[in-house]
Amino acid sequence: MTDALRAPGGFPVVGIIGGGQLARMCQPPAVALSLTLSVLSESPDAAAALVVPSAPVGQKDDVEAIRAFASGCDVVTFDHELVPLDVLAALEADGVKMHPSPKALVHAQDKLVMRRRLTQLGIPCPAWAQVSDVAELKAFADVHGLPVILKTPRGGYDGRGVRVIHDPRDAADWFAHREPLLAEEAVDFTRELAVMVARSPSGQGAVWPVVHTVQTDGICTEVIAPAPDLDGDLQGAVTQAALRIAGELDVTGVMAVELFEVQDRASGRPTFVVNELAMRPHNSGHWTIDGSVTSQFEQHLRAVLDLPLGEVTARAPWTVMTNVLGGDYLELYPAYRHILARDPGLKVHLYGKGVRPGRKIGHVTVCGGDLDALRARGAHAADYLQGTVKE
Amino acid sequence: MTDALRAPGGFPVVGIIGGGQLARMCQPPAVALSLTLSVLSESPDAAAALVVPSAPVGQKDDVEAIRAFASGCDVVTFDHELVPLDVLAALEADGVKMHPSPKALVHAQDKLVMRRRLTQLGIPCPAWAQVSDVAELKAFADVHGLPVILKTPRGGYDGRGVRVIHDPRDAADWFAHREPLLAEEAVDFTRELAVMVARSPSGQGAVWPVVHTVQTDGICTEVIAPAPDLDGDLQGAVTQAALRIAGELDVTGVMAVELFEVQDRASGRPTFVVNELAMRPHNSGHWTIDGSVTSQFEQHLRAVLDLPLGEVTARAPWTVMTNVLGGDYLELYPAYRHILARDPGLKVHLYGKGVRPGRKIGHVTVCGGDLDALRARGAHAADYLQGTVKE
Repeated sequence: MTDALRAPGGFPVVGIIGGGQLARMCQPPAVALSLTLSVLSESPDAAAALVVPSAPVGQKDDVEAIRAFASGCDVVTFDHELVPLDVLAALEADGVKMHPSPKALVHAQDKLVMRRRLTQLGIPCPAWAQVSDVAELKAFADVHGLPVILKTPRGGYDGRGVRVIHDPRDAADWFAHREPLLAEEAVDFTRELAVMVARSPSGQGAVWPVVHTVQTDGICTEVIAPAPDLDGDLQGAVTQAALRIAGELDVTGVMAVELFEVQDRASGRPTFVVNELAMRPHNSGHWTIDGSVTSQFEQHLRAVLDLPLGEVTARAPWTVMTNVLGGDYLELYPAYRHILARDPGLKVHLYGKGVRPGRKIGHVTVCGGDLDALRARGAHAADYLQGTVKE
Repeated sequence: MTDALRAPGGFPVVGIIGGGQLARMCQPPAVALSLTLSVLSESPDAAAALVVPSAPVGQKDDVEAIRAFASGCDVVTFDHELVPLDVLAALEADGVKMHPSPKALVHAQDKLVMRRRLTQLGIPCPAWAQVSDVAELKAFADVHGLPVILKTPRGGYDGRGVRVIHDPRDAADWFAHREPLLAEEAVDFTRELAVMVARSPSGQGAVWPVVHTVQTDGICTEVIAPAPDLDGDLQGAVTQAALRIAGELDVTGVMAVELFEVQDRASGRPTFVVNELAMRPHNSGHWTIDGSVTSQFEQHLRAVLDLPLGEVTARAPWTVMTNVLGGDYLELYPAYRHILARDPGLKVHLYGKGVRPGRKIGHVTVCGGDLDALRARGAHAADYLQGTVKE
């Protein structure tokens, strides 16, 4: 980070480790707010490196590269949760301001740590256990039934690192790594929800409306904001839980809390259990770019700088965000031209990434009053860009 | 422009000559749309150079620098109207795609050419004449009264290049340059209006709602969208005039048409005369970033690439944009922190420019239903950043 790129007037430089689409989508609000980003990118053509002037190349486990990078930044935050703990410890020893802090981040890096802590706090979770071999997994299944959801505590997202186990013996290969795994009951859920919360080092918090996340084959394909027909008590309980988790874990920046909506067996009322935490901007919050007064990306920048948080109210009755996955078109531009023509109100967000089948390469957002129509518009555009609709 | 910065998938590179705030504010929509900007900047710390990776330094009259720059771009557009005609001619000879074209742009570069053309088209203008000496100016004043508004045909904006003449003899110094000047009647206007129109090379057009521009000492300080209590026939007539001008002049990209609202002497009905044209994103359109489904900056990029235009409807009943001028604070960051705390719904846009008294360094936008409250919020924030409010 050269000081030549710093905006005059005392404005800070925010360092982001990781040059993916989340870092990329921080650039528009940084431009507006006169904040300078510096992004440590995996490669010169990383999504964020294409749009941020200061984008040195360095890997997430290269401690010297990261220390040098951090020395030019006023605060450091993250595009992903994959920076090793020893690297974070080195930065901490250097006195680098990191948000979220390693102490908070570990709950998003390690699902066993997260489950232990949430359970301790009394936050509803699926039944779970740490299991170290097939016998322990079988014991868990004997109590909670099959299938069991088996997760590697670290490194998994979007279905990677997660397996549905119908016979405990099938998991023998994962136990061969001799690391304890997380076993969870297969929750009988009504639907999947998510809520984004922001919290600043001063302790200010803000929570966006709870959304419904539609998953296909373990990948989020669509987000509806707010979640339709959400029970008022449940909305309140989820909001309170998100703020409590953020506060108790001392989260700084934004955090996504992914949830299952379930029916309480005793009362028959809707309630929730927490599925996952992510301490960074998250796919379930992409709708906020177009649909909220303050986007999750702007809010993350404000929070990590301990600036006052922005208003999180929705700008339309409904916002639908639909993910665009890589499909048939390698040359996306002609398809993109078509969808711009077909739907002038569609907001297109592409990440500058090469197309690979199933890779998240962008999203589209529509806002308005007719939810069914919005969903159809989003789905058409995403399908068209993926090459699965030919008209 | 190195091809390494081009997004994969067939997406084009848009070159912008001039690295001011208008080029800078093109970067957020370019990020979303996966378009790559390359900005020929006046200096390495120009407003746009701080936020765009490809920002070579070059001056607007350096024909070889501009030719080299343009050779790496798929299309070239402008941050300002100051590129000399011979430079534009050289680019045209090279086969560079320019939007707007030099043939259109001359109407925004030369106010005499503009007046001649609009008058020929029957678009209402103030009474005007080309004047070459004090005697001709006096003859104009004898017919149209004093004061007369005297303008240099080229290079003027925001009050520069414009004088109010109460005695024709006072203008003798300007005639010493031996260039003809534009004399215009001092219009007895009700208020100042503006309308932004976008037009693509294919001929698609889109017009945002007509806005009221509040001017203080010849500088636009506030824009109210839409213009309050605007007569419906006048809205229609202004919209039609904007589309007609754009079509007849073959404008490509966005154009601001600044207008005076006047009372028709015969009918007593409100009508308009055209004051100025600007063929680029314009201060009167900054409200569209937060207040319209498609901002003027996104639309300009779409238009110059001949992509389908986006929807131009307003996202709230009212949007108020208030300019932030340089004032007492050189270190703006503490004041900025205060206004973020005081008004979480305020959208702040700063241009990364050093503070100089009276210089436009940013703007703030608020959207909502209570116009008086919005205007007060915008004015407070702008005044505070300028150091003229101490609470």
